[in-house]
Amino acid sequence: MDLAKTLEDPRLLPLLPSIYVAWADGELSATEMTTLCDRVDEIEGIDVDCKEALGAWLNAEEPPQPNDLAALLSTIRRMAAGLAEPERLDLASLAAEIVYTARPGSPLRAPEARAIAEIESLLGVMGPELTRSILQVPSERTEVDASPSFDPASLGRFLDGPRADIRGRMRRLLVQPRFRYRHDISRDDYREVVLAWTKEIAERGIGPIGFPVEYGGEDSMSCFIGAFTVLGHHDLSLLTKVGVQFGLFGGSIARLGTKRHHDAYLEAAGNASLLGCFAMTETDHGSNVRDLETMAVFNRTTDEFVITTPHDGARKDYIGNAAKHGTAAVVFARLLVGGEDHGVHALYVPLRNESGETLDGIRIEDCGPKIGLEGVDNGRIWFDGARVPRTALLDRFASVDDEGVYHSDIPSPGRRFFTTIGTLVGGRVSVGAASISVAKSALAIAIRYATKRRQFGAQGEPEIVILDYPTHQRRLMPRLAATYAYHFAFEQLIDDYVAGDMDSRVLEAQAAGLKAYGSWHAIDTVQACREACGGAGYLAENRFGALRADADVFTTYEGDNTVLAQLVTKSLLSDYQLQFADMNVLGTIRFLATKAFESVREAAPAIGGADERHLRDRKWHLDIFRWRSDHHVSALAARIKKRLDGGMESAEAFTAVQDHVLATARTHIEYLVLDRFAAAIATNENEDEREVLNLLCDLWVLTRIEHNRGWFLEHGRLSAGASKEIRKLAIRLSGEVREQARPLVDAFLIPDGVLAAPIAR
Amino acid sequence: MDLAKTLEDPRLLPLLPSIYVAWADGELSATEMTTLCDRVDEIEGIDVDCKEALGAWLNAEEPPQPNDLAALLSTIRRMAAGLAEPERLDLASLAAEIVYTARPGSPLRAPEARAIAEIESLLGVMGPELTRSILQVPSERTEVDASPSFDPASLGRFLDGPRADIRGRMRRLLVQPRFRYRHDISRDDYREVVLAWTKEIAERGIGPIGFPVEYGGEDSMSCFIGAFTVLGHHDLSLLTKVGVQFGLFGGSIARLGTKRHHDAYLEAAGNASLLGCFAMTETDHGSNVRDLETMAVFNRTTDEFVITTPHDGARKDYIGNAAKHGTAAVVFARLLVGGEDHGVHALYVPLRNESGETLDGIRIEDCGPKIGLEGVDNGRIWFDGARVPRTALLDRFASVDDEGVYHSDIPSPGRRFFTTIGTLVGGRVSVGAASISVAKSALAIAIRYATKRRQFGAQGEPEIVILDYPTHQRRLMPRLAATYAYHFAFEQLIDDYVAGDMDSRVLEAQAAGLKAYGSWHAIDTVQACREACGGAGYLAENRFGALRADADVFTTYEGDNTVLAQLVTKSLLSDYQLQFADMNVLGTIRFLATKAFESVREAAPAIGGADERHLRDRKWHLDIFRWRSDHHVSALAARIKKRLDGGMESAEAFTAVQDHVLATARTHIEYLVLDRFAAAIATNENEDEREVLNLLCDLWVLTRIEHNRGWFLEHGRLSAGASKEIRKLAIRLSGEVREQARPLVDAFLIPDGVLAAPIAR
Ligand SMILES: Cc1cc2nc3c(=O)[nH]c(=O)nc-3n(C[C@H](O)[C@H](O)[C@H](O)COP(=O)(O)OP(=O)(O)OC[C@H]3O[C@@H](n4cnc5c(N)ncnc54)[C@H](O)[C@@H]3O)c2cc1C
Ligand SMILES: Cc1cc2nc3c(=O)[nH]c(=O)nc-3n(C[C@H](O)[C@H](O)[C@H](O)COP(=O)(O)OP(=O)(O)OC[C@H]3O[C@@H](n4cnc5c(N)ncnc54)[C@H](O)[C@@H]3O)c2cc1C
Repeated sequence: MDLAKTLEDPRLLPLLPSIYVAWADGELSATEMTTLCDRVDEIEGIDVDCKEALGAWLNAEEPPQPNDLAALLSTIRRMAAGLAEPERLDLASLAAEIVYTARPGSPLRAPEARAIAEIESLLGVMGPELTRSILQVPSERTEVDASPSFDPASLGRFLDGPRADIRGRMRRLLVQPRFRYRHDISRDDYREVVLAWTKEIAERGIGPIGFPVEYGGEDSMSCFIGAFTVLGHHDLSLLTKVGVQFGLFGGSIARLGTKRHHDAYLEAAGNASLLGCFAMTETDHGSNVRDLETMAVFNRTTDEFVITTPHDGARKDYIGNAAKHGTAAVVFARLLVGGEDHGVHALYVPLRNESGETLDGIRIEDCGPKIGLEGVDNGRIWFDGARVPRTALLDRFASVDDEGVYHSDIPSPGRRFFTTIGTLVGGRVSVGAASISVAKSALAIAIRYATKRRQFGAQGEPEIVILDYPTHQRRLMPRLAATYAYHFAFEQLIDDYVAGDMDSRVLEAQAAGLKAYGSWHAIDTVQACREACGGAGYLAENRFGALRADADVFTTYEGDNTVLAQLVTKSLLSDYQLQFADMNVLGTIRFLATKAFESVREAAPAIGGADERHLRDRKWHLDIFRWRSDHHVSALAARIKKRLDGGMESAEAFTAVQDHVLATARTHIEYLVLDRFAAAIATNENEDEREVLNLLCDLWVLTRIEHNRGWFLEHGRLSAGASKEIRKLAIRLSGEVREQARPLVDAFLIPDGVLAAPIAR
Repeated sequence: MDLAKTLEDPRLLPLLPSIYVAWADGELSATEMTTLCDRVDEIEGIDVDCKEALGAWLNAEEPPQPNDLAALLSTIRRMAAGLAEPERLDLASLAAEIVYTARPGSPLRAPEARAIAEIESLLGVMGPELTRSILQVPSERTEVDASPSFDPASLGRFLDGPRADIRGRMRRLLVQPRFRYRHDISRDDYREVVLAWTKEIAERGIGPIGFPVEYGGEDSMSCFIGAFTVLGHHDLSLLTKVGVQFGLFGGSIARLGTKRHHDAYLEAAGNASLLGCFAMTETDHGSNVRDLETMAVFNRTTDEFVITTPHDGARKDYIGNAAKHGTAAVVFARLLVGGEDHGVHALYVPLRNESGETLDGIRIEDCGPKIGLEGVDNGRIWFDGARVPRTALLDRFASVDDEGVYHSDIPSPGRRFFTTIGTLVGGRVSVGAASISVAKSALAIAIRYATKRRQFGAQGEPEIVILDYPTHQRRLMPRLAATYAYHFAFEQLIDDYVAGDMDSRVLEAQAAGLKAYGSWHAIDTVQACREACGGAGYLAENRFGALRADADVFTTYEGDNTVLAQLVTKSLLSDYQLQFADMNVLGTIRFLATKAFESVREAAPAIGGADERHLRDRKWHLDIFRWRSDHHVSALAARIKKRLDGGMESAEAFTAVQDHVLATARTHIEYLVLDRFAAAIATNENEDEREVLNLLCDLWVLTRIEHNRGWFLEHGRLSAGASKEIRKLAIRLSGEVREQARPLVDAFLIPDGVLAAPIAR
């Protein structure tokens, strides 16, 4: 067989670099060759001819001749010549890029990419070094750190967990020069760049990856959220646009609509040929969406819904994709059928025609400049009698039949509404998890800088590396520990969400709480990191400005944090079998306030000793965090009961004790985070990694106890001596974490090109 | 005398509106007329002719005829016609504006402005209402609040204190339409706008107001800082440019230079015809400026200094005014005379020629985009053998004589350097005080919005005003209280700085500490306020984005906060007569660690009772805050001593206990703030105002104790019961402050046009 001829087969394209590498290193062992062929076999769409060609290339008996290899190499180089900065790519990304330019319209599919990544690891090579050697680019100077106690790449794989594949793919995509940050362009151009990025993510199959296979997806919300967390390191306008397009717009069609809607829109939403909005919020109603005022009145004669904005305060507001790109929207409106108000429902409403003009009955305005996310076109929408057919109602939970009669299997309008909203919990899971990515980026930048930056020192000596200052350690190390803690909590949350077997109320409460406290942690961390870099931190190129301005909104959208935190506590109160919002509220509260309180008191864990062994005992940590949370719940119940007994309404009573409601939410979420962190550590099989993770976990717990030590002291759970000891220990452990700080941020696997800050080099 | 003819006299111009008002209201009493004439007499530069004309206009015996008044009115209207939105101006600003357009080059001087303001108050009228009536513009709808317990305008005057005049002037200037925020323009244009604003502030005599009278100033740093605090409500690029030009550049010439330099540069710096930089920071040395590396080598032959940047890390960095506008700089460099290094000194170095080209031996680059302050042209400067004459050395503290011999009255290079730096303490005072203005703006926006925004509520009822939610109160009210607290602390600091009779080390420590904790408070407050406004808070028009991005740098420039906080503690340690940095450190520490500790222990205030009367007892507050601070100092000394005894170097020991160093600084600053707040309240003669201020003070103290209750419990200064009670009380007082929240932010006297956020209307 003429090997050189096979080089023209487009199906072989993605494999060329791998083939070259397989031979370039000297002869491969026969077993290696076999494994290689096996992997290749798994690639979809490879036909017999193609396999034959491959077999010939990988035939250990009859290895390719030097001139074959030369032809192969020059083919690869020719193709790579079209790429900007190919030397930054690893093998799989190089293949992906070659395919993307040479085989337009049929990008590398997930299985192909996976096979190549596996080949790469099989060959024992990783990263751009290999590509550099193929393309003969001199390698970059890489800094060598003081020997870390663990392997950051391996810990990175552990953090990636079941989503390692998709995360790797996403990272490789984002280092492409096309994805370079663009802050040098106008707002309008920026929006177009973000749109182009979004489309590429669609085309690469990542956007729709959570959709059913029959609509171009891979039915994997795990992959979608996994990819989303990696986007959290990149431009957050892109993250938001992707979230709106595939998560909110596509997701609500998928979850609130039925087959009719799926058939009509899902594939187009997934490949981004149909761009859409999620139009819930109104100017007057953001947190309280149950009282939205947009009306969708059913007209029996025309068999249509007529959608109207009754007054200016009821215009849709802050709607992503609305100002410019969206051609349709999932609109939340009160459904009025036969004069009866059935509460808020979702409808599919076209907004613009193909030339981008707004349709009859629709008026749209730009929201104007925002603090951040300027790459997203947020807008306001007014409806003035816009008409949509009856079938526009996304009718998974309620429908209007041919006779114009409203039906729903869920009898109570309140419960119907919360079921509708509940299906959208994925947005909170995603945004919460992505906020932790932001914290990781900020820490990676600040910690790398702090391991090199020097300031002050004894005469004649080199100045001190700023990360060696105890204050610097106290500013950054507990936040690094907390970031690890939240990482694992979110990984578990994603798994639980994807598995779908958790009680939906519990899942929603966890998502709400982790999103709230996670995003607060993130913006606090960004600020601390910015300050930790001094003047250099204030330069835009070092990215804290964008990180903070963009991530700031994480505390507001997908639910305001203060409001979300209250959901956590509401769910805790109703954990005791009875619904807080129901008739039985009095009963629940009475129960909690008396019986439960007794048992909480009895279950009190031992008073903390002041010795290190005790203070670092994980079981004690779990016990007191759990107890603190339980104690808060029952003390809260007692407070509410007092007010109910005094004749207050339950909602009013709940509001009156709001401060305790929030404290309760925080203690519960901290328990949850600790529980997840501890559980995740136990699953790690590498002792060195377990050790450093346990160190982080200790530091996190102790910092939290230190922060809240007033409460523990008040409630007799800490002696004054133990309390002081905890502070000392937290300081000391910050110093210990500092020794591993650089490899610990390396394990976040944020590609340099995505991190991008010059001071983080 | 022909009254109408006098209308053409430019010297009478500023008084025309006052004259009209004097008659328009009906006849004036003879005494009033006399007072009026007296005031007018005080106006500088009014000659006899002019006074005669005035006398004729104000002659009660022979009042002007209706046609005279008509002519007067039409003159005023004609002049006002050229102004944009004159209806927003009060009488004095209207006069100022008329003068500014009609009498270019000779703006209204301070005494004139003051006289007009006095006339205005004499006439019993205030604010733009009067102007509207003169100009016949219909008045704006003003919202009436639920009756406040005090008069916000009066409390506002109390807050303004001795700087009321200049603050009023500055406010009136900033509401001019020319000073509208400009975020619609390019970075380059923005810089030019900020320059134009800066120049106007110079021309109005406010820029140089702190300079000696003989150089165009009024010798009033009190006025300069007063004006600066009002600028803190406006665009912070302007604030920064003003600070660089008049405070740092002009200020260092004034304070580090001698008559020669004053004569040559001060007037030009003050009227902004000479724009300059303050070039201290280098890339490698920001906090540690004692080790700057730029060299100024004296050349005996040419009688010049040759200035050189030895390597890239020693380039000047982040220098305001350098990238574009500065034509000169005060440069800090190591002085080498006759081969001997005398440490860091300041020199006057020209940077650019008149056409803006950089001079020989100077290279300048733009720092590039920043997180905020994009209206300031920060740059980097490299010196490559730039030559300046020997007289360029700002020689107040050290000089080189005709023979090329170095002289200084301060023998130790270290002390010389700190004396040099110490004279620049005004920058920290100003920036710290301005950071509180930022907190005020943010609170004014968030609180006004929160008193109107509604969300959630019982069915059929109006939704609840969000400021009625206890969590909202807990987020905003303690921050409002803290803002008042810091306000008074800074007012006292300004007074002490201006009076100049405080020990300079103490003053520097207070300035450092208040700047650090004040600016941290400010950015924390901006973030809380942003979140408190939900999605609306994320729109750029509501200003939180700019406030935060710009004010962020307050934690870094004029000294990094973490570094400044350490200065506070160093000064406390040396309070005990002995210098921490000196030979006697061991002695000091030993002294502190033993004897002082005992006396601190003895002086422990009573354990806090749990009753409200006790918890709100100001004396108890002062006692425990003072005691906590003393306790921290001696406990810190004990910690350091242990390390010194173990053989550590003193600097190393100080670093090792840095965490306690910071805690000590915070407790001291909190004591200071409380002391100032309490003292200021005592000077207020209005009972209603005292009452609300005491409420704020209680809330602030209790919130601080609550925050730090772990420490108080550990040290036996609070019972668990009192600790819990404090939290309840803090929640309740937040609710009480909420009732006065709107008038409390109104008392900040931030003009609507400056606050500018639509949601704050
Ligand atoms: C950039 C951006 C993009 C967005 N994209 C979309 C989109 O694509 N689609 C969409 O539908 N929406 C979108 N939103 C809207 C977003 O979801 C809302 O802003 C958010 O839900 C908060 O609502 P709100 O702005 O009305 O705040 P409000 O509900 O008015 O809250 C204001 C403040 O009041 C407090 N508060 C409210 N209720 C209570 C209570 N019961 N107890 C205590 N405190 C309370 C809150 O904590 C908050 O601080 C977007 C918003 C932004 C800023
Ligand atoms: C917008 C802007 C404008 C400026 N304008 C001017 C100007 O006009 N003229 C001028 O001369 N300078 C100017 N500066 C420089 C400014 O004064 C410095 O940035 C500041 O002094 C901090 O120095 P640095 O950036 O080198 O930070 P570093 O000193 O490197 O500090 C970095 C971090 O290390 C920490 N650190 C340092 N030392 C210690 C220690 N001993 N213990 C514990 N932690 C420590 C700090 O807390 C900080 O978090 C400007 C800066 C900015 C951002």
